Amino acid sequence: MSYLGVGVSPGNVPVYHASNLKVVDRRVRIAELVLRCLICGLAVLAAVLIGTDTQVKEIFTIKEKAKFTEMKALVFLVIANGIAAAYSLVQVLRCIASMIRGNVLFNKPLAWAIFSGDQLMAYLSLTAVAAAAQSAVFAKFGQTELQWMKTCNIYGKFCNQVGEGMASAVIVSLSMVVLSGISAFSLFRLYGENKGKNTNSRW
Amino acid sequence: MSYLGVGVSPGNVPVYHASNLKVVDRRVRIAELVLRCLICGLAVLAAVLIGTDTQVKEIFTIKEKAKFTEMKALVFLVIANGIAAAYSLVQVLRCIASMIRGNVLFNKPLAWAIFSGDQLMAYLSLTAVAAAAQSAVFAKFGQTELQWMKTCNIYGKFCNQVGEGMASAVIVSLSMVVLSGISAFSLFRLYGENKGKNTNSRW
Repeated sequence: MSYLGVGVSPGNVPVYHASNLKVVDRRVRIAELVLRCLICGLAVLAAVLIGTDTQVKEIFTIKEKAKFTEMKALVFLVIANGIAAAYSLVQVLRCIASMIRGNVLFNKPLAWAIFSGDQLMAYLSLTAVAAAAQSAVFAKFGQTELQWMKTCNIYGKFCNQVGEGMASAVIVSLSMVVLSGISAFSLFRLYGENKGKNTNSRW
Repeated sequence: MSYLGVGVSPGNVPVYHASNLKVVDRRVRIAELVLRCLICGLAVLAAVLIGTDTQVKEIFTIKEKAKFTEMKALVFLVIANGIAAAYSLVQVLRCIASMIRGNVLFNKPLAWAIFSGDQLMAYLSLTAVAAAAQSAVFAKFGQTELQWMKTCNIYGKFCNQVGEGMASAVIVSLSMVVLSGISAFSLFRLYGENKGKNTNSRW
């Protein structure tokens, strides 16, 4: 009895079932790999765009320099994207290694680790984007009730580059959300209700 | 052959397996119900605390009134918590109904709907909290580089009540994250790799 065919009696089209699962697995793994590569590239782009962004303005003979470190939300965004890029790189290597070896993910501790990591990264990158977006709104439109002035009037070029970095970070966080769905699928289907002894040993 | 025992031959402790799964299901469902009730209560609390928060100050004979509508992030937080409360109430009713009827969730479209709803609510409440937290940091500590003044010096009582509401909103969003994990488990274990014909029909 093959591993994939456990619990399926010989009369219940086991060959079709097994090959069908392989197609699903291949699609899921390719989607995962593409998304992780995309995240890695865009997260680096976002971190570089925001991290290298500077603009110097002379205001009444005083030179003022705008830098991302002046706003905590941008520092958080750069760090979050740096972590996302490093994490995705490790995951890309794992994906490629598992594709070369040709094994399907049936290892629960590893699946739990990937699921937890992906969830954490999705929430981290999304909160970083939300906080940065809120700061960007204040910088762009100001908040007259609180006497917070528009700073993007003064540092236009700086704000534009931050905007480009944030657009990239938004795609990163949305891809992370999709990816956390994929890893949830990979993990929890291991807890299918017809797994017999395998399920018992875990609960 | 019972529904839960499909694919388990009579010699493979099917009774233990079925009763074990029932224990897991009961625990998961109780945890889900408790979390949803908690979210519903705390989301209402957060929305009321922030929504009803006002403070009037006289600054040079001009009366200034602080209200949550002056800051977009707080409006977003109140709306997000209102939606979370309403959504959780509906889900609590569904949980109770399914507990009374005693049926386990084996309905894929419903499981997908619950999973999607929970994911959406988790990300929504988390981004709302992140944006509000960013605004709160500016209000509390100011941003001297950008000439944004500390407003919490002037509106201390207002800021404290917003803080209490935000603490409540933070617990709501963390509970939503746990809940989205539970609903992912409930959905994707339906795609267990030994489900035979059921799996085939979906892919």
